[in-house]
Amino acid sequence: MTFPAPLTGVVPPVCTPLTPEREVDVPSLIRLVDHLVDGGVHGLFVLGSTSEAAYLTDAQRRLVVETAAGHVAGRLPVLAGAIDMTTPRVLDHAAAVTAAGADAIVVTAPFYTRTHPAEISRHFRLVAARVPVPVFAYDLPTSVHTKLSAELVLELAADGVLAGLKDSSGDLGAFRTVVTGARAHPDITGFTALTGSEVVVDSALALGADGAVPGLANVDPAGYVRLFRLCQEGDGDGARAEQERLCALFGMVNVGDPTRMGGSSSALGAFKAALHLRGIIACPATAEPQIPLAEGEVERVGKYLAGAGLL
Amino acid sequence: MTFPAPLTGVVPPVCTPLTPEREVDVPSLIRLVDHLVDGGVHGLFVLGSTSEAAYLTDAQRRLVVETAAGHVAGRLPVLAGAIDMTTPRVLDHAAAVTAAGADAIVVTAPFYTRTHPAEISRHFRLVAARVPVPVFAYDLPTSVHTKLSAELVLELAADGVLAGLKDSSGDLGAFRTVVTGARAHPDITGFTALTGSEVVVDSALALGADGAVPGLANVDPAGYVRLFRLCQEGDGDGARAEQERLCALFGMVNVGDPTRMGGSSSALGAFKAALHLRGIIACPATAEPQIPLAEGEVERVGKYLAGAGLL
Amino acid sequence: MTFPAPLTGVVPPVCTPLTPEREVDVPSLIRLVDHLVDGGVHGLFVLGSTSEAAYLTDAQRRLVVETAAGHVAGRLPVLAGAIDMTTPRVLDHAAAVTAAGADAIVVTAPFYTRTHPAEISRHFRLVAARVPVPVFAYDLPTSVHTKLSAELVLELAADGVLAGLKDSSGDLGAFRTVVTGARAHPDITGFTALTGSEVVVDSALALGADGAVPGLANVDPAGYVRLFRLCQEGDGDGARAEQERLCALFGMVNVGDPTRMGGSSSALGAFKAALHLRGIIACPATAEPQIPLAEGEVERVGKYLAGAGLL
Amino acid sequence: MTFPAPLTGVVPPVCTPLTPEREVDVPSLIRLVDHLVDGGVHGLFVLGSTSEAAYLTDAQRRLVVETAAGHVAGRLPVLAGAIDMTTPRVLDHAAAVTAAGADAIVVTAPFYTRTHPAEISRHFRLVAARVPVPVFAYDLPTSVHTKLSAELVLELAADGVLAGLKDSSGDLGAFRTVVTGARAHPDITGFTALTGSEVVVDSALALGADGAVPGLANVDPAGYVRLFRLCQEGDGDGARAEQERLCALFGMVNVGDPTRMGGSSSALGAFKAALHLRGIIACPATAEPQIPLAEGEVERVGKYLAGAGLL
Repeated sequence: MTFPAPLTGVVPPVCTPLTPEREVDVPSLIRLVDHLVDGGVHGLFVLGSTSEAAYLTDAQRRLVVETAAGHVAGRLPVLAGAIDMTTPRVLDHAAAVTAAGADAIVVTAPFYTRTHPAEISRHFRLVAARVPVPVFAYDLPTSVHTKLSAELVLELAADGVLAGLKDSSGDLGAFRTVVTGARAHPDITGFTALTGSEVVVDSALALGADGAVPGLANVDPAGYVRLFRLCQEGDGDGARAEQERLCALFGMVNVGDPTRMGGSSSALGAFKAALHLRGIIACPATAEPQIPLAEGEVERVGKYLAGAGLL
Repeated sequence: MTFPAPLTGVVPPVCTPLTPEREVDVPSLIRLVDHLVDGGVHGLFVLGSTSEAAYLTDAQRRLVVETAAGHVAGRLPVLAGAIDMTTPRVLDHAAAVTAAGADAIVVTAPFYTRTHPAEISRHFRLVAARVPVPVFAYDLPTSVHTKLSAELVLELAADGVLAGLKDSSGDLGAFRTVVTGARAHPDITGFTALTGSEVVVDSALALGADGAVPGLANVDPAGYVRLFRLCQEGDGDGARAEQERLCALFGMVNVGDPTRMGGSSSALGAFKAALHLRGIIACPATAEPQIPLAEGEVERVGKYLAGAGLL
Repeated sequence: MTFPAPLTGVVPPVCTPLTPEREVDVPSLIRLVDHLVDGGVHGLFVLGSTSEAAYLTDAQRRLVVETAAGHVAGRLPVLAGAIDMTTPRVLDHAAAVTAAGADAIVVTAPFYTRTHPAEISRHFRLVAARVPVPVFAYDLPTSVHTKLSAELVLELAADGVLAGLKDSSGDLGAFRTVVTGARAHPDITGFTALTGSEVVVDSALALGADGAVPGLANVDPAGYVRLFRLCQEGDGDGARAEQERLCALFGMVNVGDPTRMGGSSSALGAFKAALHLRGIIACPATAEPQIPLAEGEVERVGKYLAGAGLL
Repeated sequence: MTFPAPLTGVVPPVCTPLTPEREVDVPSLIRLVDHLVDGGVHGLFVLGSTSEAAYLTDAQRRLVVETAAGHVAGRLPVLAGAIDMTTPRVLDHAAAVTAAGADAIVVTAPFYTRTHPAEISRHFRLVAARVPVPVFAYDLPTSVHTKLSAELVLELAADGVLAGLKDSSGDLGAFRTVVTGARAHPDITGFTALTGSEVVVDSALALGADGAVPGLANVDPAGYVRLFRLCQEGDGDGARAEQERLCALFGMVNVGDPTRMGGSSSALGAFKAALHLRGIIACPATAEPQIPLAEGEVERVGKYLAGAGLL
């Protein structure tokens, strides 16, 4: 497919359903993809953080892309994460996911290593030079422990290295610098700026974002698509109300007891519990070494769903 | 081989020589292994941070272990890093490196993900349960962004999960808690506590460490072996003098201009430049996206070597 | 005065003009206050970060509050920072600034110490119990190194401890949780939620913030007042355009060479240079040990002013 | 007094006994000073972190210095912290503590502000230029959130700005760089390098430290003096045994329940509980907003004392 430039709308980071034995549950993944497509989303992002990419083996990663891209069959663009520590490893993942059918790749700055802005720039340039599909930068300081500066993103966009940005930094001001900077720059056209937030999608769209990649859209894709349309139509009040409904639903990410588990276990466990309760995936298991939600915590997820009219 | 318990002495984290095209330079790696064995080291640690494990593809990692383990052929224990973000990915690496001949594996806490102590514990327990060789914990907060607590390390040692610790945290006080705690614990025997420091090896040995894993031992293995012997013999003044000579040599890690490159580029670039200047490896290239040292920076590495009597 | 509940509108954190000898320049401060009042602002916040509170001696702090509050003479509410490490020291500052005429105080969580959420709660409760004026929490993780959780802020608001929040965390999602949580909570009335951002004021107001405390409003108070009115009138396009003009102007905070100075020197130096260039303050000096802007950097500030139509 | 250059030996950071109303308990402070002097210590450091300087009002700080310096009356050097955010505020404290009798001051890098190495250098230079007594740098990254580089410390020592360093960074390797660098530098004489560690004092002394500033020396001054003497005499085994006894005693800092309080509350609460149990101070209260230890936690402090032969 010709990749849209820019890509606009709701692009959920697709959860990876697992069996109780922690293998990829292909039928559940296909049902989830259908659920998202039926919800009206505008693209899919597999192998992101919400997809538990960090926990999936190479074989599992490949199977996820093949399954999703194969099932979508060109109806929507499929972006795939190529998440690893450095350039050579990212290039291996990039080759694998494009061979498996991904239409674009999403890449973070190097992590684990002690990195410099000049090395981050070199990293993206090398990746883009050797990959046949568009490259999106993934700004996720919580995981990567560096923030991509707006200046670097714009420079790489102007040089044709980056096709877009998925911004999960939580720093809306810096994101705005990218959005307005890309709009004003004579050498940048078709750049895609996506927010990774669940809770300020209306704000991001109002200031010029092209779309959103909210993990919660796994649970309520139609809600985020509705939010996107309200924003497009300039219905600020309607958008705010829909966003606030989704914010309330997003409270589910904190059901996990923080003395017992980390934030990934709680948030990803909640999304999967919700998908299980809604009958979309067969098993709510998260990958090792995450801690499963307790029964009462799953019940609270159910209450969030009920409160949002989703059960 | 029967893995020593504890493993004592100098166990260099072996640099990975690369060709100008960034492929593993097998003949140089063999020469480097010989250089280390000839220097009297007591074991080898491949695929650690100094080995640029974070930058090597899976194929390169396998080749490194096969080459080193094959060439050593049981003369020394060979530990191999199984460095990745989470349990399932670490297990894949563990299978690969043990198949390639590693006698033990070295594993960090999960990284990139938002992790909880309970998840770190679960991670090591799962890895140890599924891996046929001893498991060492690798405490490297600079890269992993969590510190392994002494309490957790001792608990895992007492439960037979961990055979040892490579401590690169820089926190000698916490390391001492592990060393004295392991000595006092009725359920812990044969536990190996190794410091990853280059510059307080004498201190670590004096307080009870079993050995050291200094990256600089690539450049001067005989120096670290001499230091280890002086400590064993209780020659405090001699040990301090040798350690101070090695500290001065270690200054080479800062030759790289910090406005131009990060700490990994500078330190690993310096080690490889030194090995190249000493005629041990054919090419000083570091892996992408690291920034190469400039000519003048390499010259300064040469001066450090000359100052330490190594050129 | 009866303090407004909520306080709405633009509440600039007032710069503290200094003489070349680094004493408080009282005539310049009075001119600056007039400039802000004439610009239409709705309140003043003295002794905040933009005021260089961290750099002012106790005597200087007192003089600033006396001067500003005395000159305003009840026309506008005057909030004053009581910025120090712990409860007893904050209480001393609170007594001083209220004696000097402040209508409300602004307090951070403890810093420098190793602090726990329970201690942060206790801190605000003790301060509010002993201070006769409303207490605002100041969330500034860049300086304080902890983030005030939305849960804690709402709990303290419901218990009558906090009258408001100045949120300089940059985390608009968490700020939204406070805004919507305060609106929904049966025990919270009149709570004031202010954003400390310069660059997403329109976003914050759109999601329900009561007002803004932008440092850049020193330079262009009328611009932020205009932005506030456009938001109130529901003119989203007009607000965005005005906000984008102010975002461009805000670029001045980066004029300082980062190899020569820190972010405070650059940003506060730029604000003061702009006020000096606009003829409002007599001297652009910042407090010690900040590094002064170089001549060329000041020239670039002038270009930002010209670009925004302010010179 | 002529301040010793270098200052050698054990220099406890003196706890500040408080009454139940959180006023300075002068008789208890005098008893504590006597306890330390009787224990054989070589100097006193008041208004450090262990002294709860961050929690004391200016009046309380002054009273502490007057009491301690007055009671010591020149028998030992008295160093005093001048702990505040920036140069002007530090200068006020420096004037106060020297007027109150301090023989030297101890100063951190600026904190709370966003600081640059050039600003840190300027800060120390300005302080030293305006203060009539020797200035020690206090390296405490846990509180200050920057690390003083060895290069900067040595540069400031060579320029006569710094008389010494109190290193509480936990980074013994960097401390060694200062120690050996100061020894080798032609322009540095009489520089004092003190470790702030409780648990690697033997290591620090062995590599050339002049002395130690261990908070735990409040509880067991004689133990640390014994340790210092054993190190001086070159009795490595004896020193290690004494250090390990003190390390075990130091375990008391963790008695506080981390779900209920922060690290300062636990550690300072334990030191004060121990002093109270030993009959040296009248009340174990810590300053607000710290959380008091629970009864069972105080009992555990007692067991640590008993285990070390101190009850």
